[in-house]
Amino acid sequence: MINVAIIGASGYSGAELLRVLLGHPDVSVRKVTAASSAGQRVDALYPSLAGQCDLAYDELVPDELGGVDVAFIALPSGEAMKIVADLLGRVGRIIDLGGDFRLRSPQLYQAYYKRAHTVPELLGKAVYGLPELNKASIAGAQLIANPGCYPTSAILAILPALQHGIVAPEGIVINALSGVSGAGRSSSVDMSFAELNENVRAYKVGTHQHIPEIEAALSSVAGTQVRMSFVPHLIPITRGIYSTVHANLAVSVTQAELTTLYEEFYAAHPFVRCKSQIPQISAVTRTNYCDVAGFLEPRTNQLIAISVIDNLVKGAAGQAVQNMNLMFGLEETKGLL
Amino acid sequence: MINVAIIGASGYSGAELLRVLLGHPDVSVRKVTAASSAGQRVDALYPSLAGQCDLAYDELVPDELGGVDVAFIALPSGEAMKIVADLLGRVGRIIDLGGDFRLRSPQLYQAYYKRAHTVPELLGKAVYGLPELNKASIAGAQLIANPGCYPTSAILAILPALQHGIVAPEGIVINALSGVSGAGRSSSVDMSFAELNENVRAYKVGTHQHIPEIEAALSSVAGTQVRMSFVPHLIPITRGIYSTVHANLAVSVTQAELTTLYEEFYAAHPFVRCKSQIPQISAVTRTNYCDVAGFLEPRTNQLIAISVIDNLVKGAAGQAVQNMNLMFGLEETKGLL
Amino acid sequence: MINVAIIGASGYSGAELLRVLLGHPDVSVRKVTAASSAGQRVDALYPSLAGQCDLAYDELVPDELGGVDVAFIALPSGEAMKIVADLLGRVGRIIDLGGDFRLRSPQLYQAYYKRAHTVPELLGKAVYGLPELNKASIAGAQLIANPGCYPTSAILAILPALQHGIVAPEGIVINALSGVSGAGRSSSVDMSFAELNENVRAYKVGTHQHIPEIEAALSSVAGTQVRMSFVPHLIPITRGIYSTVHANLAVSVTQAELTTLYEEFYAAHPFVRCKSQIPQISAVTRTNYCDVAGFLEPRTNQLIAISVIDNLVKGAAGQAVQNMNLMFGLEETKGLL
Amino acid sequence: MINVAIIGASGYSGAELLRVLLGHPDVSVRKVTAASSAGQRVDALYPSLAGQCDLAYDELVPDELGGVDVAFIALPSGEAMKIVADLLGRVGRIIDLGGDFRLRSPQLYQAYYKRAHTVPELLGKAVYGLPELNKASIAGAQLIANPGCYPTSAILAILPALQHGIVAPEGIVINALSGVSGAGRSSSVDMSFAELNENVRAYKVGTHQHIPEIEAALSSVAGTQVRMSFVPHLIPITRGIYSTVHANLAVSVTQAELTTLYEEFYAAHPFVRCKSQIPQISAVTRTNYCDVAGFLEPRTNQLIAISVIDNLVKGAAGQAVQNMNLMFGLEETKGLL
Repeated sequence: MINVAIIGASGYSGAELLRVLLGHPDVSVRKVTAASSAGQRVDALYPSLAGQCDLAYDELVPDELGGVDVAFIALPSGEAMKIVADLLGRVGRIIDLGGDFRLRSPQLYQAYYKRAHTVPELLGKAVYGLPELNKASIAGAQLIANPGCYPTSAILAILPALQHGIVAPEGIVINALSGVSGAGRSSSVDMSFAELNENVRAYKVGTHQHIPEIEAALSSVAGTQVRMSFVPHLIPITRGIYSTVHANLAVSVTQAELTTLYEEFYAAHPFVRCKSQIPQISAVTRTNYCDVAGFLEPRTNQLIAISVIDNLVKGAAGQAVQNMNLMFGLEETKGLL
Repeated sequence: MINVAIIGASGYSGAELLRVLLGHPDVSVRKVTAASSAGQRVDALYPSLAGQCDLAYDELVPDELGGVDVAFIALPSGEAMKIVADLLGRVGRIIDLGGDFRLRSPQLYQAYYKRAHTVPELLGKAVYGLPELNKASIAGAQLIANPGCYPTSAILAILPALQHGIVAPEGIVINALSGVSGAGRSSSVDMSFAELNENVRAYKVGTHQHIPEIEAALSSVAGTQVRMSFVPHLIPITRGIYSTVHANLAVSVTQAELTTLYEEFYAAHPFVRCKSQIPQISAVTRTNYCDVAGFLEPRTNQLIAISVIDNLVKGAAGQAVQNMNLMFGLEETKGLL
Repeated sequence: MINVAIIGASGYSGAELLRVLLGHPDVSVRKVTAASSAGQRVDALYPSLAGQCDLAYDELVPDELGGVDVAFIALPSGEAMKIVADLLGRVGRIIDLGGDFRLRSPQLYQAYYKRAHTVPELLGKAVYGLPELNKASIAGAQLIANPGCYPTSAILAILPALQHGIVAPEGIVINALSGVSGAGRSSSVDMSFAELNENVRAYKVGTHQHIPEIEAALSSVAGTQVRMSFVPHLIPITRGIYSTVHANLAVSVTQAELTTLYEEFYAAHPFVRCKSQIPQISAVTRTNYCDVAGFLEPRTNQLIAISVIDNLVKGAAGQAVQNMNLMFGLEETKGLL
Repeated sequence: MINVAIIGASGYSGAELLRVLLGHPDVSVRKVTAASSAGQRVDALYPSLAGQCDLAYDELVPDELGGVDVAFIALPSGEAMKIVADLLGRVGRIIDLGGDFRLRSPQLYQAYYKRAHTVPELLGKAVYGLPELNKASIAGAQLIANPGCYPTSAILAILPALQHGIVAPEGIVINALSGVSGAGRSSSVDMSFAELNENVRAYKVGTHQHIPEIEAALSSVAGTQVRMSFVPHLIPITRGIYSTVHANLAVSVTQAELTTLYEEFYAAHPFVRCKSQIPQISAVTRTNYCDVAGFLEPRTNQLIAISVIDNLVKGAAGQAVQNMNLMFGLEETKGLL
């Protein structure tokens, strides 16, 4: 059994992680921490887990993590960098679901996260945990930066086309729609039902912290600097991300060739399903799947690539477990299908 | 023109009141106050009002209310009783949308609102502002206690049957479903979209502060003490209340007689529409209507009465304006249809 | 492995059944039929099942059901009675998710289902498949009538109190709120998003076909004829039923005694969770759990019992699999937790 | 009084038109037709109109339209062209809310609407009824082609920038999100609540019939052929369109200059509100407003322009009445604020 701890288990990503790990046949959840809820039973906050989880939230005490094979950190961005250095010597592996270790550049981190990175020397140590991009290096990693929800969706939509030079690295436009759980367990008026229901709003136009993360991944694939525009929108659903990506075609290609290229690219990746129909969010809700489809628009000479994920699963907890499976030599889909 | 002020105009009831009053041909909105938002423009909080309202929120300064013909108070319960005595000498009339002046008994107030009433001597001065019950006394009132949203809906559902002795005063069961705006402009996790969407929960079972309000009104109609059970439920819609009332039949009556009785009772009340079909919330959304229907269930010898309102309109702001119309001798429907 | 067939697998209950059975370790799904979709792949209708199910819908040909250990029938009510007699000799066991075999009386069937029962001689052969009521007889049954979604929820709410004589058998009032999937995969304007969103409506007041089913089960428990009023409401969520039950107390009891009684009653039933907090639907969504709580209301001398289920799981497909587990001597929770 | 008829008044656009016109002080609704609902009272289909409208739906009989000053046609596209020639001699003016007269080219009509245009000789006679574009010619028009909902939103977002040459006519990308009422009063499974709730899907990628309409309007403004990509998405709200438009900057401009340009452009247009904050749908729901904002993204050298409308009001019925006001010399906002 793999002994795991979840650091910051009272938010939605942490709770989803707990739900997935409780059902994983090779995992034993040893500890869940949450400063704000320490002492409370997990099923008091998440009644859906009643009968399946007798744990209570603890304070985080690093000394108590001995014997933990993998610690998942599901804290808000900015918190993981305060504890990772300490944890690295105490637990086997670390998978951080926050944003602290996704960027290589402390300058970009500061520009987009609006705070200085306190352990820039660890940035190079982290592996970006998108299995469809980095499967080999994930296996041996000690510290995984689990990708953001938007980046997971956006990158998977365009990855095959960009890697094969089908589209140009300039002029990519990504519009993404996110369910509300992506904002976490929130007590702000802005996230209240009465404000969000029957409403839509874009936010952080041009400034979202996932911009450099997406560009870095796409640039590594393209072999050149990619510039893209990313506009996230909040829509009144609980779970799910819908990404619609426009990119200029760089070569002449038929729809059939494009479809084949996507299918071959993702043939070895069990959680990406290539679709000929237009994807819809409900097909992936509460699963670790990402459904992807690419459509040529001859009139504008563009590729319109669409992907859908559940932001809490493939966009957070499920992908973290997928990474854990790879790190421990388990079948990639174990506990996730 | 009737000069009005709205005290506590930054919540949902206050904002709805402002929306209605801005469209009322005989009203001039002179002042809107909101301690927490003082200095901000109204349309910064409520962008829907941009282009229609140039006001900014002020602090409440009673000295500045000279010349105000009617002050609407849309503060949380417990706040109005702090200011009404002071306001009574300064403004023409007062319509309080909160719960402070709805009960005659300071003991009941304390039992259900969990605080002592500070001006019990004013309780007898207030008129309960349900036009379908008290039209005559509303006209001459100086202080109106605008009914709660649940009581408005529940009382109107059963009023004709109770007044005519069709149903027994004992054993009434009221189940009500409310949209989320009824809880006000809230920043609690419990009211967040991710918690309420795709969810339902009853709350305050047996303890809701509207219980004595409903029982008092029904008792006055029945001429004897009415005891009823009231269970409110929160459902994922923004606006609307659905009340389903069960009452034991006290006499033998046909469906046709029942229907006629309801129609005759409400013939003089322009905002209650008697239906032969089962009411639905969408028919009254953003209107001051209450749709009502009564159905006999011979198998159980019960009346099942159903009503729907928009909690922010007939359940709050619209009813307040209806009361204002009656107080100032205007047509009851003015500015509301 | 248990070889199963799903007759009528293209509706929501059938699809949910397929989803649950695909994840059941002891089950092999051999055939899925759907007259209207014959020839189509399952994942064309339900893209969420892509990658997990390669089946296509067949026409129902009884001769092809040889070797099937259990046939689940998920057809609309009225269809199962046309085929059950023929199937009984061909398949090991039958679990019917529709309403055709839930009532013992063909007269009641005709009164509420508005059609004559064509095989009344089989009504006595069927076992009502509510495990919390009939666990022993389910094990040996050849034909299971899987309970309706409302009855499952309503009965479980009040069962312990009624069986122990805590409440009177007269004067029970049940208000239930259902998600839209309960109406099946529908193409009517009434079930369209634009009509149901931001709306609530009661329906079939006094006439719902689940009334005799609930009364029969409650009467068998009470040992006397139970009369209750049942009002179903349609609310804008996809999954879930919320039942609020009022019953008159027959004896003096404390809240602590009531709580203990419920806990003891359900101790042997792994899918009913007794709550001290007010239940909410989201806690049971996509699970086979039923959360139940009972609250005394001394003011009215009533019990207010509340239960929540997912109508497609404990209210249909999950309960059917729970029954299958009991029939085949498996652990009751297998494939369901 | 202006005597009006609504041809095809049983759909959502027709019903919204009726709602708006009933509140218009200078209008008398003389006739509403609906083949499928002929003989039924309007308030049987739309209970929200009970008490405000005593009309019943008639069959369309052109001979009965004498004395009608303006006929609104709210039929599905393809129907108006069958009757307009006949109506032109009988009624004063015609405002068609469908797509039949929006394109000048019968070839484009056939390509996108998948049917031949039967009265191509009338295409040149129709004026495209977007007041912010064509106010002068609307006043004198006999036949108005009321714009589509997506085009209204998309064009207003980018109009000032394109007209002033701020952005290039090539490479425009429009992503739009629509509420479900845009699809009309539908009985398809695809439009059912259970399919759309908690779901998002793009549709008609690259083929939507509003593509040539948008391009034609933008080309007329730019003075050159505009090519843009348009992807509509269906989201689970009832009303509203959110358009996010990306365009490449053609000149150097500051955010302040851009903002001023938008404000000056729309200063004479009472229904377009220029925002400095990111627009949201709820601000315009049930109003004829379009909220617009433009944001520079220096990193990609693009303009990101956003607009929101209510698809049934500014995107259909409200705009039709705005056009009527202009045609009859009334204040543009009459009956709409």
